[in-house]
Amino acid sequence: MKDVAARAGVGLKTVSRVVNGEAGVSSDTERRVKEAITALGFRRNDSARVLRKGSTSSIGLVLEDLADPFYSPLSRAVEEVARAHGALLINGSSAEDPEREQELVLALCARRVDGLVIIPASDDHRYLAPEIDAGVATVFVDRPPGRIDADVVLSDSFAGARTGVAHLIAHGHRRIGFIGDQPGIHTADERLRGYRAAMAEAGLEPADSWVAPGSTDAARVAADAARMLDAAEPVTAFFSGNNRVTVTLVRELAAPARAGSGVALVGFDDFELADLLAPPVTVVAQDPADLGRNAAELLFRRLDGAEDPPRRLTRPTRLVPRGSGELPPRL
Amino acid sequence: MKDVAARAGVGLKTVSRVVNGEAGVSSDTERRVKEAITALGFRRNDSARVLRKGSTSSIGLVLEDLADPFYSPLSRAVEEVARAHGALLINGSSAEDPEREQELVLALCARRVDGLVIIPASDDHRYLAPEIDAGVATVFVDRPPGRIDADVVLSDSFAGARTGVAHLIAHGHRRIGFIGDQPGIHTADERLRGYRAAMAEAGLEPADSWVAPGSTDAARVAADAARMLDAAEPVTAFFSGNNRVTVTLVRELAAPARAGSGVALVGFDDFELADLLAPPVTVVAQDPADLGRNAAELLFRRLDGAEDPPRRLTRPTRLVPRGSGELPPRL
Repeated sequence: MKDVAARAGVGLKTVSRVVNGEAGVSSDTERRVKEAITALGFRRNDSARVLRKGSTSSIGLVLEDLADPFYSPLSRAVEEVARAHGALLINGSSAEDPEREQELVLALCARRVDGLVIIPASDDHRYLAPEIDAGVATVFVDRPPGRIDADVVLSDSFAGARTGVAHLIAHGHRRIGFIGDQPGIHTADERLRGYRAAMAEAGLEPADSWVAPGSTDAARVAADAARMLDAAEPVTAFFSGNNRVTVTLVRELAAPARAGSGVALVGFDDFELADLLAPPVTVVAQDPADLGRNAAELLFRRLDGAEDPPRRLTRPTRLVPRGSGELPPRL
Repeated sequence: MKDVAARAGVGLKTVSRVVNGEAGVSSDTERRVKEAITALGFRRNDSARVLRKGSTSSIGLVLEDLADPFYSPLSRAVEEVARAHGALLINGSSAEDPEREQELVLALCARRVDGLVIIPASDDHRYLAPEIDAGVATVFVDRPPGRIDADVVLSDSFAGARTGVAHLIAHGHRRIGFIGDQPGIHTADERLRGYRAAMAEAGLEPADSWVAPGSTDAARVAADAARMLDAAEPVTAFFSGNNRVTVTLVRELAAPARAGSGVALVGFDDFELADLLAPPVTVVAQDPADLGRNAAELLFRRLDGAEDPPRRLTRPTRLVPRGSGELPPRL
């Protein structure tokens, strides 16, 4: 109110009159006040918090990678919840760099976000403790926080991967390759653990050469796939640790040199057009919109004053058989 | 520096000594100063601007839709240029709502971004004039600004669409349907203009029922496609106005009821896995990373003090023939 009054060159009472639609203000003055309100980014229908704080409330979302389509529905779901609470969403990306994550989180805090939803790249979030103490609500999603306690929403990566690999085993596969994301990333480690559990439960011992965690860079994934396919005892199926790896494997298996090789594939994460490929791709689907929505709702619960101990939600995954995961092994 | 000194409870000289690695500071004091630096979001290797301004420099990117994969490489390119200049990127989405765009832009300005890259949802950006006067550099990308003059980077939507439609005509098509984005969106209008130009240049007059601009909602696109395919004189080919429309058309044409109908398709925008579909999808490809990079570079040029008149870059598109656009008409 003070800022509007100063910018319009009028008193607080005049601003109040204009905002409340009361009489006794000249049309020229009314116009100046409204212009000041617009210029300062107020909106009449914003919540009480906005007027109290002198700017639109906002929450920050720290993503891991702007170019991974997995995060698109997650971001959009967070945005929809924010909007329903009259808050703006501001995003940034850590590009999987812990230093960058910290820099971005602190920059968002310095820009007075009311709360944060974080897909962490770091495994040590003690740097956030002063901000949380200062009242910045924080929820983690997709991966848990490191060395602090906070609300977190995760997919059940372990159970999902175990189910996907057991599905391949049920279709007769014994030599199954695992290509996943970097070790140390929570989801990557959990999915590898799920792979190992399913193999062990079937009495299978994976060769070291069948297990290739690492970068999701296409060249790295393609090289590891080629190595496993061209070995003396080739794998007959792949389980891939996320959608970026799956897309590269689909491309590799569709290459002329591999056409008709009938290698089975189950991928963690669904992706657009998976059902229209030949063969259609069987996936263990997460629901990224559900993750985002739950994380944002936990955040606004905290912003509304909830002070109970941090919560940990684990969301189920869903096996979607489409064809590539039901191919029998070629021996 | 002052903020760090205040937070650490030391003098300016002590902060300077710690930052420059000079002697004469106790290890306890050094630790406190470093913690204050971390908490305030400074990094020693940041640019002079950071120290001058007392916080990390940042630029804002206002997207149209978080869930459209076209914007992923664009965002990432802007982020890479920002990073090369020691700045953070903060994103937000207008969700194609002009009011939301304005609210977001002003919220970012209130949060002291140094500059803005905007994919506009609005056709009136006069609300930005006070911010630009106050020194917030602004560049538009993908769509031009409305009623203000500013740097802008566009793809050549008109020429790209004309080339794509001429390609279908060269393969024998006469009844070509156009399904595009909302009228009033610059890129949508330009692509429709390109469609009409190619038809006119070939002496073809499109029936009104072949032209369907509108929402990119899958149900709307599918309904218009079905109407054109089930007409007494059905279209034999589609030109689609963006990747969201193309993906829906691919899905419709792959449905059992349409299998083998041999309808040709050229889509504006490339998209992931287009080359692995059956048939592979012919597209008029933009280079979203190139758009983002150019926009960000124009922005940092302004932030570095360039004061010449606003520039307008128009980037070429590229026809990528893959199969779906080379199918002959089924008569």
